[in-house]
Amino acid sequence: MQPAVKASTQLRPAAVAAFAAARRRPAAALPSPRLRCLATAAAASASERRATEHPLFPQEAKGPVVKMEIPGPNGKAAAKELEEVFDTRSLNMVADYSKSFGNYIADVDGNLLLDVYAQIASIPVGYNNPSLLEVARSPQMASAIVNRPALGNFPQHDWAEILSTGILKVAPRGLDQVFTAQSGSDANELAYKAAFMWKRRMERGGAHIDFTHDEISSAMKNQMPGAPQLSILSFSSAFHGRLFGSLSTTRSKPIHKLDIPAFNWPHAPFPRCKYPLDEHSADNAAEEARCLEETERLIKEWPLPPAAVVVEPIQSEGGDNHASPAFFRELRHLTRKHNVLLIVDEVQTGVGATGRFWAHEHWGLEDPPDMVTFSKKAQTAGYYFGNEDLRPNKPYRQFNTWMGDPARALLFRGIIDEIERLDLVSNTAATGEYVYEELRKLAGKYPGEIGNLRGKGQGTFIAWDSPRRDEVLKRAKSFGINVGGSGERAVRLRPMLIFQKHHADVLLDGLEKIFKS
Amino acid sequence: MQPAVKASTQLRPAAVAAFAAARRRPAAALPSPRLRCLATAAAASASERRATEHPLFPQEAKGPVVKMEIPGPNGKAAAKELEEVFDTRSLNMVADYSKSFGNYIADVDGNLLLDVYAQIASIPVGYNNPSLLEVARSPQMASAIVNRPALGNFPQHDWAEILSTGILKVAPRGLDQVFTAQSGSDANELAYKAAFMWKRRMERGGAHIDFTHDEISSAMKNQMPGAPQLSILSFSSAFHGRLFGSLSTTRSKPIHKLDIPAFNWPHAPFPRCKYPLDEHSADNAAEEARCLEETERLIKEWPLPPAAVVVEPIQSEGGDNHASPAFFRELRHLTRKHNVLLIVDEVQTGVGATGRFWAHEHWGLEDPPDMVTFSKKAQTAGYYFGNEDLRPNKPYRQFNTWMGDPARALLFRGIIDEIERLDLVSNTAATGEYVYEELRKLAGKYPGEIGNLRGKGQGTFIAWDSPRRDEVLKRAKSFGINVGGSGERAVRLRPMLIFQKHHADVLLDGLEKIFKS
Repeated sequence: MQPAVKASTQLRPAAVAAFAAARRRPAAALPSPRLRCLATAAAASASERRATEHPLFPQEAKGPVVKMEIPGPNGKAAAKELEEVFDTRSLNMVADYSKSFGNYIADVDGNLLLDVYAQIASIPVGYNNPSLLEVARSPQMASAIVNRPALGNFPQHDWAEILSTGILKVAPRGLDQVFTAQSGSDANELAYKAAFMWKRRMERGGAHIDFTHDEISSAMKNQMPGAPQLSILSFSSAFHGRLFGSLSTTRSKPIHKLDIPAFNWPHAPFPRCKYPLDEHSADNAAEEARCLEETERLIKEWPLPPAAVVVEPIQSEGGDNHASPAFFRELRHLTRKHNVLLIVDEVQTGVGATGRFWAHEHWGLEDPPDMVTFSKKAQTAGYYFGNEDLRPNKPYRQFNTWMGDPARALLFRGIIDEIERLDLVSNTAATGEYVYEELRKLAGKYPGEIGNLRGKGQGTFIAWDSPRRDEVLKRAKSFGINVGGSGERAVRLRPMLIFQKHHADVLLDGLEKIFKS
Repeated sequence: MQPAVKASTQLRPAAVAAFAAARRRPAAALPSPRLRCLATAAAASASERRATEHPLFPQEAKGPVVKMEIPGPNGKAAAKELEEVFDTRSLNMVADYSKSFGNYIADVDGNLLLDVYAQIASIPVGYNNPSLLEVARSPQMASAIVNRPALGNFPQHDWAEILSTGILKVAPRGLDQVFTAQSGSDANELAYKAAFMWKRRMERGGAHIDFTHDEISSAMKNQMPGAPQLSILSFSSAFHGRLFGSLSTTRSKPIHKLDIPAFNWPHAPFPRCKYPLDEHSADNAAEEARCLEETERLIKEWPLPPAAVVVEPIQSEGGDNHASPAFFRELRHLTRKHNVLLIVDEVQTGVGATGRFWAHEHWGLEDPPDMVTFSKKAQTAGYYFGNEDLRPNKPYRQFNTWMGDPARALLFRGIIDEIERLDLVSNTAATGEYVYEELRKLAGKYPGEIGNLRGKGQGTFIAWDSPRRDEVLKRAKSFGINVGGSGERAVRLRPMLIFQKHHADVLLDGLEKIFKS
């Protein structure tokens, strides 16, 4: 059994200046009018806190508690019990959420870890967040749990209000409609379906033109022309989910795809940039131009023409791969030019972690994406759109029994309120700049440990390559840190939006101990 | 504005004998040991209630209240508000769930309808069920809402217990494992993926044989052999969901499939039986033999060999199509003979409505299905399986971020407890026999109104063909009844499990009024 370790929470005064500067990013820098409004409203109440950098949750643990190696005896027993009824081969640890709070996750042996993985980037405002617990205990939530409606047929009287004060309050600029779903894969597939219906409508010549007899009968046989030979174009290393349509666009790892039938859809190379992006702009611009050229060629020549291109602002599961705003602006231009939709998959990047509410706000697009999908930190899912032509021309074309979940939509509204109350998008921007800067210094000190540090200016959405990645992830636990990887060799940071400077210091300290050891 | 109508709740004494007889079905008739146990335990407490046929929920409304045509002024205003942000073309009515209770759904104009559609067959034990509200208000639920885990990596300490005292307590005979999901489509697609992985394992010669380099590289390109040319065989008129893989097996209506790319998967004819099944056994047996023959031919000859056959015990969305237990037994035999898995899709038929907990228990199978999928009335989703070979040979092959939802799993446990407490599977069997018998009499009295009455012995899972179906559904509202259709011309009854004789009398009375009018 390992000795108990209690991570230090010492300050790193050298970085305080950079941190304070980052916090001063003005609200006007946020491109979305809605978010500008949110940020401005929160600024006054947040200003005092900013100056003193007080903990957002004073009741949170002051640091990790490592009592024993994970799993300890209770963890082993719990895993054994679970193994009887559930596949535990991907088990990381059996958690005790009743003892978890804020950024800290507890296991069943009394260990308490700083969690910068956060349920694969899906916990937004902390375990047992008091404001969310209030939402969870509200009569409205109890009703949503017990009286789950078929939203397309029998929506509840306050569904419009739940949407407009929640999901739609943070809609990306230009996209004022939403179709709700239940997971990221589901959201992406619904967006793909909307794209195919739109594409065929365009090919037919408009919404008023009805299906032919041939289309109707062939669709029932899964044959052309009713089931069209169209495609969705994605990028190498992309991850868009694991259902049959979404998996056909996922190109992250073989283990995700092996043995599963797939559509013959095209994928273009995603830029393999050098980091930091701004120090290799010429090389990166050439690489991005190469990828865009191939994208355009595939759009023009692939035998199953793409109805849409789907792209992540930062490829997450595929290894934390970044590209420049110029790449994405040109991709928007390309897709518009060829009458192909652009779907931005913000399942992992969305909801504040990159220092903007939506990561694609970093691109400075004049012409917004056609659809933006979300899930994870939203705790509900769906796709935003703006163009009325993306509503199918008949009812029941885009439909299913539940079409989302009002309970989870209520929770997202609570999350949005908490993000606003605590000014958390500014927090991720500021904390992220601090973490990046400190990691840059660590990389200088331990050059063999941190390669290709990336995520500068992208909030806490930071990653680097490690020659002994899996060992680093494992050893981190013994220093009280729960951290995950992406791709083959990246360590990825996915802390919650309430991750502050003092949490960052715990993380940085732990990392340095690993590098030293 | 229509005059207010208050439906009568008069008794139908002629049918009381049949009803009482049906209630006497012994618990031993239930094939699953687990369910036999449930039913026996509940028998004592239920006996007194049975004799007197007391309402299960005395606080429930005594009958519908029809104040005005639906939508009334509030309904119109609510629909207009919703239309701003949500596609309302499939809107049936805007509901007020705070005023709904038990079998009765309220709209926003003060109307109160007997609901025999129940959110497309997905509400099991009544609106605002008091026992479920207790579950919804429990600290365990609040934690599950706020601390949603990535179940495959960081399951909560009580996940094994939640499964074993809930979802797995009602596992179909022979299937003691579950993989949890989020919707019926999701559950089916995960089952298909498990089937493909199993099939390729068999083709390779075992779990110990690793992927070849060629498989790994081709999978990333969506090409053979890594992405295999295999299929799932389904039946004409089947409905298995609307994501890309599940939609490829759905053959219910063109509007579900048009413009969406599909896999070139085979479908066999589903028997077009004559009803009542037992009065046309020779004709039906011939029809079923024809369909089985074609199924076998497709299994042997389709260019993309099927890894599995998927079938609904009663085709629901496709028009309430039934087949005999012998058909399904032979299908099990056929699939076993050709080393193809049998997936039974119990998304709509499962959880008690057919007078058995699982509809496939009616078949008397000796060799259970390989997988059974569920959703809807379970309020959570997934697939059951028993064969260890259906666990993929490596971790992360069947995986996603949430892998289900502990909050909804807790709710299903509450639903199971309520089904047990109130002996609701016996209730649907008994009420169903009563309803069927009364409808048979109505069909005799109004032969032009009720054709092909079906669902005898299948609990409340009853339907008939109507020459003016859409008009019947619409007019039903004016008599205080919310009822849905299936297929092109079927009226389908999908009441909740708490639908009792006195509710049936309200329904039968309303139907007779429609037929007379």
